[in-house]
Amino acid sequence: MKLLYPTSITLDTKSLEGFNVSLIPYDIKSNIPDEHTDAEILITWCNPVPQLKEEAKRLKNLHWIQSLAAGPNDVLSAGFDASKVSICTGSGLHDHTVAEHTLGLLLNAARRFFEMRDFQLQGKWPGHLGGPQPDRPAGKFTTLQDANILIWGFGNIAKTLTPWLTALGANVKGMARHAGVRQGIEVYAEDKLPELLRTTDALVMILPGSEDTKNVLNAERLKMLPKHAWIVNVGRGTSIDDDALVSALEKGDIGGAALDVFVTEPLPADSPYWKTPNTIVSPHAAGGRPQNPEALIAYNLRRFLAGQELKNTV
Amino acid sequence: MKLLYPTSITLDTKSLEGFNVSLIPYDIKSNIPDEHTDAEILITWCNPVPQLKEEAKRLKNLHWIQSLAAGPNDVLSAGFDASKVSICTGSGLHDHTVAEHTLGLLLNAARRFFEMRDFQLQGKWPGHLGGPQPDRPAGKFTTLQDANILIWGFGNIAKTLTPWLTALGANVKGMARHAGVRQGIEVYAEDKLPELLRTTDALVMILPGSEDTKNVLNAERLKMLPKHAWIVNVGRGTSIDDDALVSALEKGDIGGAALDVFVTEPLPADSPYWKTPNTIVSPHAAGGRPQNPEALIAYNLRRFLAGQELKNTV
Repeated sequence: MKLLYPTSITLDTKSLEGFNVSLIPYDIKSNIPDEHTDAEILITWCNPVPQLKEEAKRLKNLHWIQSLAAGPNDVLSAGFDASKVSICTGSGLHDHTVAEHTLGLLLNAARRFFEMRDFQLQGKWPGHLGGPQPDRPAGKFTTLQDANILIWGFGNIAKTLTPWLTALGANVKGMARHAGVRQGIEVYAEDKLPELLRTTDALVMILPGSEDTKNVLNAERLKMLPKHAWIVNVGRGTSIDDDALVSALEKGDIGGAALDVFVTEPLPADSPYWKTPNTIVSPHAAGGRPQNPEALIAYNLRRFLAGQELKNTV
Repeated sequence: MKLLYPTSITLDTKSLEGFNVSLIPYDIKSNIPDEHTDAEILITWCNPVPQLKEEAKRLKNLHWIQSLAAGPNDVLSAGFDASKVSICTGSGLHDHTVAEHTLGLLLNAARRFFEMRDFQLQGKWPGHLGGPQPDRPAGKFTTLQDANILIWGFGNIAKTLTPWLTALGANVKGMARHAGVRQGIEVYAEDKLPELLRTTDALVMILPGSEDTKNVLNAERLKMLPKHAWIVNVGRGTSIDDDALVSALEKGDIGGAALDVFVTEPLPADSPYWKTPNTIVSPHAAGGRPQNPEALIAYNLRRFLAGQELKNTV
């Protein structure tokens, strides 16, 4: 049995030894060599979509794809035969890195580091952002302390992020398909959205890219947020109606937006987001560094060989 | 007995009632009216130094000054008679706000939000900061996870900050006049500085302004830090030898510097810090928002009236 692993990431293959499986490296920028198109298992990381489309036709024996991406939209759209091939996400490998970036974006927004930078580049002291100032003024997002943070999409990343926000004094609530209490945090179903948005100081979006999540943050919902509320999106760009958000930013109907993901990446030169007020453009930098992927691969490899259900199947 | 409180901050004076003391508001921008120069107690917040110098001569009955600043260098330099007047700092009122700002600066440095902003202003996508990238590469400060953070000046602010850094996966060590374990963190005396600096990824300086701390981060000590190390200063500008740091930044001998405090504030137009590489200029914005000052004032007021030792005496 053959497992193909990509050289686009440095894997510690020693941590994958001990199974009756040949570990074969491949270059994501080339076709997989003919002699290895009989592989049963494919690990993917940042494979170009055309390459995946090609391999979907060539890898006739394929039964399992382990992506290292949290949201493997590339693999899902490549045309692999879903009746034969199990596709697993890299969910869990990016929790810490994405949560850290999200916390950084929230503090960047609250403490207005982006605005300080604008002044610095002009050699000007942003006196209005320093010195004596009101503590936690009403109707402004100036700190995480006592701030109402709503996390929309309450999976592993949210579970990593939440204790940090709570330690910093924030009131965290979750929003997900299913209501319930997770790690002591009240998670609501989406019918509560209108009610919760009204008291939200920062809305953190960690939604996957799918038809269900397309444009879910639309004009109507943006209007429900207080005027000072910030949007932080580290999920997928498709979950925001860009026209509606751009309009809200331009009119000052919303506090601001810190965006790490966009419908088209890199963000096109003619995107309004470069210049809308109170907008932080981050270049899909939250994740991109799978942590300990060998443990997930080895775990699922053992289960695959044993004929057991795989973890993180789509 | 009279207590003079400044109108430069909104105090909930109800929380100061119940003592046999008259609570008298005053404007920090004017002289204290003649009929109140017999006051025993003066609360200060952002008073101009010339005003303080004047009142040092006029308030003949003064016995206690309660500053709301963490480092009341203004009051200390105003010429009050130390043999008659106890001066108390606002230590503790700024722990949370300064710690939050410090965390924000650390994440700004590690995640390079300042560099992303430079690209955004030019309408350019900073692709090198996003997408697939190495996880925790050696010789770079890219995350707090597994980073060695040395906090120089280990008081209340450090004690607030440390659990957050630890939760984010950092290895925190402290540096202070006296060694010991504080809140589970090993705090070293300054003789260990050379040894500790060599393995530091980010040096957080929270030192008070005094003769003892003047230029303590000098050229020799900067050289001990790894080339990728960042300096974050939220204490006092005087604790850094600016010529040495500017030179290290310009030569790339240091990772960067996130500075919230400067020898002269506002930072003068001809300061090199506006343009040195990898430098974040923050306008003394970490604190400036005393939290629950009434509790400290009331606590010390009771002790003052009872003839007991005051909290936070200099």
